[in-house]
Formats: sequence, C-alpha cells, structure tokens
Amino acid sequence: MTTERHRIHDLLAEYGALLDAARYDDWLVLFADACSYQVVPRENADAGLPAALIFCDTRAVLEDRIRALQEANKFNIHSDRHLIGLPRITGDGAGEIGVETPFAVFQTDQEGETRLFATGLYRDRLVTVGGTLKIRDKLVLLDTFAVPSLLATPL
Amino acid sequence: MTTERHRIHDLLAEYGALLDAARYDDWLVLFADACSYQVVPRENADAGLPAALIFCDTRAVLEDRIRALQEANKFNIHSDRHLIGLPRITGDGAGEIGVETPFAVFQTDQEGETRLFATGLYRDRLVTVGGTLKIRDKLVLLDTFAVPSLLATPL
Amino acid sequence: MTTERHRIHDLLAEYGALLDAARYDDWLVLFADACSYQVVPRENADAGLPAALIFCDTRAVLEDRIRALQEANKFNIHSDRHLIGLPRITGDGAGEIGVETPFAVFQTDQEGETRLFATGLYRDRLVTVGGTLKIRDKLVLLDTFAVPSLLATPL
Repeated sequence: MTTERHRIHDLLAEYGALLDAARYDDWLVLFADACSYQVVPRENADAGLPAALIFCDTRAVLEDRIRALQEANKFNIHSDRHLIGLPRITGDGAGEIGVETPFAVFQTDQEGETRLFATGLYRDRLVTVGGTLKIRDKLVLLDTFAVPSLLATPL
Repeated sequence: MTTERHRIHDLLAEYGALLDAARYDDWLVLFADACSYQVVPRENADAGLPAALIFCDTRAVLEDRIRALQEANKFNIHSDRHLIGLPRITGDGAGEIGVETPFAVFQTDQEGETRLFATGLYRDRLVTVGGTLKIRDKLVLLDTFAVPSLLATPL
Repeated sequence: MTTERHRIHDLLAEYGALLDAARYDDWLVLFADACSYQVVPRENADAGLPAALIFCDTRAVLEDRIRALQEANKFNIHSDRHLIGLPRITGDGAGEIGVETPFAVFQTDQEGETRLFATGLYRDRLVTVGGTLKIRDKLVLLDTFAVPSLLATPL
C-alpha cells in the first residue's frame, strides 16, 4: 500500500538522487507539464523582493535551462550530494499538496574535496498526474544570497 | 490515516521548521505543559556528568529562556537550518514514546556564509495530549563541548 | 502495523545510531550471515574500476575488520554522527529489496571541533531473515577518493 506520504517521500528521494546522478532529463520528468522552478534567496523572499537567482515559469524555460547546463558542464567540475530532510505537509486540497522540506547540498571537486555548498528549504506544490505525483511549483529558498560558486546544476 | 510514526515524523519536521523560521512561540506549543529541555555535551552525558549547557526543567523556565533569546536576538545575526535524520523509536509504553534522532544545524551569517554549526542527537520522550503528540522531555546531546558561538537560539 | 517501508527506515536509523554509539558488535548483527560490505569511491564505481577502499566479501572478513578497528581505536580519537537521508527503493523481488540512500558523516575530534567527514550513497540489498530485515550487501559509494583521514570506523 503506497500512501500519499510514501509518494511524497519517494518523489523527494528521487529528486535528489537524479540530480546527484546528473540524470537531468529524468529529473525533468518529475515536473508536471505546467510547472515552475525558482531559486530565491531566503532574505529576498522574507522581504517580499521578487529577485530570483533562477526563474523558470514554464516547463519550456526549465528545459532550456537544463540543456544549457548540460552543454556548459561537459567538463564536469564537481559532483553533488543532496541530503533532504523530513517533509512537512503544509496543506492539502484542491488537488494540490503543499510540502516544505529542508535540504543541504554538498559538492565534491576534482581534487576530491567535499564541501557544504548550500542549505535551504524546498517549498513545493505537488499534483497527481495520471496516478503519479509530480512537481507543479518548486520554490528553492536558499539560506544565502552569496552562492559560493556558479549555480551550474539545479538545487 | 495518520499513524503514530507519521505523527513522530510530523513533530520532528515541525520542530526544525519552526526554529528555522524563528517562530519560537509556536515552537513552545510543541512541548507538553510539564516538560523539560536540556542541551548536554555528549561527552558529559557519556561520563554521567550532569553539566548542561542549557537546563530548563519546567515549561516556565523554558518560556523565560525563549523570551530572553527573542529580546537578545533583535539584531538578528544569523539564520538556522535544521537537518533532522530518520527517527529511531527506542521505546513505547506507559503512554510515552522514546525517540532518538540525529541532527545537524547549519547557520548563515549576515555576510551570507553558511557553516556547519553543530551536530548531535535528540533523545525525546513524547506524550499524547488531547490527541496531539507533544514533547515531554527533550535532551539535546551535542557532539561537541566547544560550541563555536553562543547558543543564541535553541537547537 | 510495521510495513516494509517502516522496517527499511528502522534499519537505516539503527545502522547510523549504532555506528555513532561505537556499538560495532550490535552493528554487525544488522548484517545477514552471508553478506558483503564495500567502500568504493564513486569515481571508481562510475568508471567500472573495482578498486575498493574496504572490501569485505564475507561476514568473517567483516568481523575481523571490526575487531581490528576496535583494537586500533582504544585511544578514541573522534566521534561520528551519521545523517542519513530518505531511502529510495530501487527494486523489490526474489526476496530482496534494493535501496539507495544518501548520507553524510560528521566527525568531532578531541578538541571538540566538528567537521564534515564524508558524503556518499548507500546501495543496499536487504533480505528478511527470521522475520527481521538484514543487510545482505552494502556498497558505500564515497563521493571522494581522497578520504580526509584514515577510515578508522565504518561508514
């Protein structure tokens, strides 16, 4: 029996695993056809400022962004590791589930050094499409406005 | 269907989320009326030494502590991010549930630098009050005795 | 009601907790009689290179390794803290469950400084033995080939 909660856990685990394996095309499949993906510094979000580090308000824009990253990352300079915490279900209704989940991303460079890259909070709106839970809107609230290196891969 | 395990997950997720959002009054509501909150270096706990970094043995003391922190933190110097691992249910009986959960706290300062602040283990005694799971006793076992900065916010 | 998923969560939580408490004999009990435990840099695994940092292909070898570590660690030089993420169930059949789980390990030294030690992915094959879920094969994919200090304790 797969409950809604299990499906939320599975989606989050899959989300991190696909990014860490650099399987960006499979990662895109986790999003609904109509979707958005944004990375916003927490400070800006708290202050109601709209300035996003990444702003993809349609799936086409998100796909373009990912293709560009894959092109830019041919000389793969680091690997990622996502650690995603326990989700907090913030709302459930009108066919949507609101979920907030803390995360940390660690990066390992070509010299083999692993560092904390970023921490933050995922604020997701999830929908069920054809029996599968998908991401409709993902807001990545980054704890820092000073990203220590280029956002070369999605968070 | 919300099972006991789901309620434990929810309580832990809520615990971290409310601290990270600096919603300390809401965080207090997660504790039972009769409660305790302690922060003890792991070394001291292993050696049977009682020396706690923070020792609140009643709810009134915990509330006082939180009010003092809120006063002291008006010039907010950092933001927190809790990453809380999978809980281990250590006992269940006499209306109480024992739970142990590893955690890491990351802090971001005003320059936007995010650092590992502390790691440790939550050792909780949970009780059900009016149908809601609450924290009766929380022992925060800190991995270090050398806290890298003042404990300005609860762990 | 303890579902398979709960038993997977419990096994992972127990795995980290027993290592962090340095209860290595109890940790061994989490493995099936016929078992393997390997630590392999992710790079090597991706390239199909067999070079493992630790390679225990029988329980006897794993037990020997643990006894040697306990001997070597009498002057306990650090404590560990495992943070284990949400598991991703990758397969289920023929009496085995495949699970992949991201992890981070933090170490605290005798001066009380806590540092990120390593991140990576557990790739587990789990089996049920006498009603209890056990680890048949554990592959620890380390994100780095450059382990910052000796692998004095299992990951």
